[in-house]
Amino acid sequence: MSTISLATYIFWRIKQIGVDTIFGVPGDFNLSFLDHIDEVDGLRWAGNANELNAAYSADGYSRIKGFAAICTTFGVGELSATNGVAGAYAEHVGLIHIVGGPTVNAEEHKLLLHHTLANGKFNIFKDMSKNITVKAVSIEDIATAPAVVDDLIRTGYVYKRPVYLVVPSNFSEAQVPASLLRRPIDLSLPPNEPLAEKEFIEHVIKKIVRAKNPCILVDACAARHDVKNSVEALVKATQFPVYVTPMGKSAFNEDSPRFSGVYVGALSKPDVKESLENSDLILSIGGLLSDYNTGAFTYHYHTTNVVEFHSDFCKVRSAVYMGIQMQTALSKIIRGLAEVDLKYTPTPIPASVSEYKSVQQITSGKLTQQYLWYKLSYFLRAGDIVVAETGTSSFGILQAHYPAGVTAISQVLWGSIGYALPSSIGAAFAAEEIDRSKRVILFIGDGSLQLTVQAISDAFRQHLHPYLFVLNNKGYTIEKMIHGLHAEYNNIQPWDHKKILELFHYKDDYEYLKVGTVEEMNKLYKDPEFNKPTKLRLIELMLDEFDAPKNLIEQARLSEIINSGKE
Amino acid sequence: MSTISLATYIFWRIKQIGVDTIFGVPGDFNLSFLDHIDEVDGLRWAGNANELNAAYSADGYSRIKGFAAICTTFGVGELSATNGVAGAYAEHVGLIHIVGGPTVNAEEHKLLLHHTLANGKFNIFKDMSKNITVKAVSIEDIATAPAVVDDLIRTGYVYKRPVYLVVPSNFSEAQVPASLLRRPIDLSLPPNEPLAEKEFIEHVIKKIVRAKNPCILVDACAARHDVKNSVEALVKATQFPVYVTPMGKSAFNEDSPRFSGVYVGALSKPDVKESLENSDLILSIGGLLSDYNTGAFTYHYHTTNVVEFHSDFCKVRSAVYMGIQMQTALSKIIRGLAEVDLKYTPTPIPASVSEYKSVQQITSGKLTQQYLWYKLSYFLRAGDIVVAETGTSSFGILQAHYPAGVTAISQVLWGSIGYALPSSIGAAFAAEEIDRSKRVILFIGDGSLQLTVQAISDAFRQHLHPYLFVLNNKGYTIEKMIHGLHAEYNNIQPWDHKKILELFHYKDDYEYLKVGTVEEMNKLYKDPEFNKPTKLRLIELMLDEFDAPKNLIEQARLSEIINSGKE
Repeated sequence: MSTISLATYIFWRIKQIGVDTIFGVPGDFNLSFLDHIDEVDGLRWAGNANELNAAYSADGYSRIKGFAAICTTFGVGELSATNGVAGAYAEHVGLIHIVGGPTVNAEEHKLLLHHTLANGKFNIFKDMSKNITVKAVSIEDIATAPAVVDDLIRTGYVYKRPVYLVVPSNFSEAQVPASLLRRPIDLSLPPNEPLAEKEFIEHVIKKIVRAKNPCILVDACAARHDVKNSVEALVKATQFPVYVTPMGKSAFNEDSPRFSGVYVGALSKPDVKESLENSDLILSIGGLLSDYNTGAFTYHYHTTNVVEFHSDFCKVRSAVYMGIQMQTALSKIIRGLAEVDLKYTPTPIPASVSEYKSVQQITSGKLTQQYLWYKLSYFLRAGDIVVAETGTSSFGILQAHYPAGVTAISQVLWGSIGYALPSSIGAAFAAEEIDRSKRVILFIGDGSLQLTVQAISDAFRQHLHPYLFVLNNKGYTIEKMIHGLHAEYNNIQPWDHKKILELFHYKDDYEYLKVGTVEEMNKLYKDPEFNKPTKLRLIELMLDEFDAPKNLIEQARLSEIINSGKE
Repeated sequence: MSTISLATYIFWRIKQIGVDTIFGVPGDFNLSFLDHIDEVDGLRWAGNANELNAAYSADGYSRIKGFAAICTTFGVGELSATNGVAGAYAEHVGLIHIVGGPTVNAEEHKLLLHHTLANGKFNIFKDMSKNITVKAVSIEDIATAPAVVDDLIRTGYVYKRPVYLVVPSNFSEAQVPASLLRRPIDLSLPPNEPLAEKEFIEHVIKKIVRAKNPCILVDACAARHDVKNSVEALVKATQFPVYVTPMGKSAFNEDSPRFSGVYVGALSKPDVKESLENSDLILSIGGLLSDYNTGAFTYHYHTTNVVEFHSDFCKVRSAVYMGIQMQTALSKIIRGLAEVDLKYTPTPIPASVSEYKSVQQITSGKLTQQYLWYKLSYFLRAGDIVVAETGTSSFGILQAHYPAGVTAISQVLWGSIGYALPSSIGAAFAAEEIDRSKRVILFIGDGSLQLTVQAISDAFRQHLHPYLFVLNNKGYTIEKMIHGLHAEYNNIQPWDHKKILELFHYKDDYEYLKVGTVEEMNKLYKDPEFNKPTKLRLIELMLDEFDAPKNLIEQARLSEIINSGKE
């Protein structure tokens, strides 16, 4: 019987579900594990500059390719990745975090190894990870190891959440039957309970048929649990208008005549707010109702009119259908709609949806936030991946119109500053694996950039060509808007951004550009060379310190109220 | 009755125990807390570029000033600091980690706030921190808040371990009586149990009197729990030869005629190994017997000859005296020794202690690890703080002779790569507060530098002037020595190190130097200007990729055996 090492087995399993890059940092407890990457054709080692960046990159990669893998070393390595893994958990991003651990023997003897807390407790880090993953296990027996690995990958993939695996270093080389690889891991969803599903579907179809002023609201989990196609089919079948939340942006084609804008509660544009809140039926798909996603909890629609579709339950008014997953339920509803007669007459969509077009009349002046985000609509094209950092970027980008086929990444719920840069590099790995002409476009502030800047080195290492737009507005403008407008703690050390690429580039081609006016920006966007992702580019955008998107200013005011506990 | 805000109270308490800098990163849940830093004269906000760097800097600062404080925001901020806090726990470094949290109200309503896991579990992060701190609490009631804060600071200070405090944002402004500040926090150690202490002391003195071939072995906790003066007094009283472990280096004056070298088990120089292992009494002070501190557990002395002094217990042969702290026990032993007659005749110290002097004959050639570390002995002077990164630096630096008054920092047990740079910046904050002419000298490899490079920006922000020696040996040489000599995963993206200071400096003065030969190094060390810490300097040292200190090569061999589980 032919055998392979457990490490090779794990890498093959990861590769089989479409993951071509392993993110991470080497450390002495994972070296023998990493030895086996090369045995799997087409699998590459990203070699990140640090673990947090590796985790963020894995998150960005997973949002494009559906799953990701990161490998760190015991204790020191894995703890540095914690924040990134927790973010993936909060935002429903599937990945496996593999930790190379000490030998089982060392653990049994409670050796005072380096990378431990010197208290003989080797399980502490796994226990910590249990809080931020759906499953966290160690390999303890080579006989059961392949089944443990398969179950873990399946769990992370199906539930779109992180899972955690410790591989003690003595198990990396341990042999398992190669034949196990022949049967792929079952990634199908468990079926919905038929009776409950039937009841739910009939209930929803009845409501759809009766609705006079209905709509569809698309949120984060529609993208994460990949029901974008179902949403499209649902709109085709019903012609209902479609709103997206901030986290749902790009999960529906904005070129569609039924696209009706971004709904953010009280922070929505007035016509969007009014039309959505007047609906007599809201089909809410993949909702994740966090403060930044709802205009600080200012949703004002009647919950009696809502049908909620989630990855683990569905809900009509107050009736919860536990365990009914939207993925299958939605496709059955669409099929069911073909059998019924819909009397709905499409209503006009809010006028503000076309507001971004006004930017075409702006031809000169200093670069402003308003101009920037509207204008971006004209730079984007099908296939682009746009990554926006928490802050002025994540708020501002809601103003941009996304052409069909644009994918957006933003960590609106977890909101860890520094996330977007490494995430965009992770997305650039994924983009390259899909199609080398696919563009990845990052928007990040100068404050957030500082937390994770060495991720740019990772991009150069793999010759990736993202566009890095850096908004230079002298520090943490979002924090200034929330509290401490002129406080020292909201300032940052000014950097000479021109030097960043010079530091990291080695022999790769790169381009640094500085843009401070509308004329410069317009010229750049018109340049055919600039439109091609042929090199790594950093574009520094010079903005006023206190210029912020209007919705951010209002969100900040509401956040300050919530934070002070005076609501 | 005059009152102050709880935030102000906390900052005053921190300042009262000698902490003048608060490390950390702003985030919306801690902004109202940070508002109050300015109310305490002489307290400054470091404003680090990211949280992990802030935690490492706090660790370095605490090793110089005895305690440190770091402030982060809920979830995203605190989790990024985890690895740094865990390292402080493992290595007995006292600090307080203050987290600005959501309001108690938001928690009670399980709001889906940003920076949460969106599962309504607000205590998850505190639960995670319990594993890596001695105490982790939230403020829940303003009436008891001052007592909670005092107890926490006392616990962290006395036990030299991290403590963790959540301040929900609604409590920052809540008022407490100002008069509470008049009585300082009691930082004294709880007294030893008198009978047990007496028995232990008599036991030890009897052994000291009888010993014919005794010695003292100084380890990490002698520095951390500050018994350096007691060690000196003990040597003065007994004239016993003194060895240090890797983690104990600099805890005893190497200019002393009784200094006998670095003991690292089988990795010691042969004469050091022989003379220590032949001892009939070893007074082991502050021992922390991890693998990297013991030459991979290759101590070969008879434990029957050992007296162990710890911060929380003491031990003679197999008899454990629980709760007897070395601090008071040692000073009583020294007093007791004045009453007895010691017959010990000082033995000669190992010849290898002077080996470093041979470097003075080297006047030309390529820069080598052996030359580098020996030569460093001549650059160092009293008052210097030397920080060595885990890797070739932490192993190599054991070869250097430290003049009296040098303090060493190295994270030998936790061993997180990337630690040393931010730690040295933290130490530079402390050095500046003690004496502006005090020098901080870092040695770090080009691989480790990449993890935390933006810490240099923090140094510029505060106009600090550390010496940053960067060993350019093309990647993770320590990992290559352990496993994967030519593996892709042990390589790094090459950086143009010259650009680092240009990127971060803003308007501050700085100097980049490149040294590849003995001549260049000798010339530099002789330059009186270079010897003054008048600007921030980065000195790139060009070394061969596979040139490593001998003790590292041997340690690597032993580590590989332990990691493969074949021991």
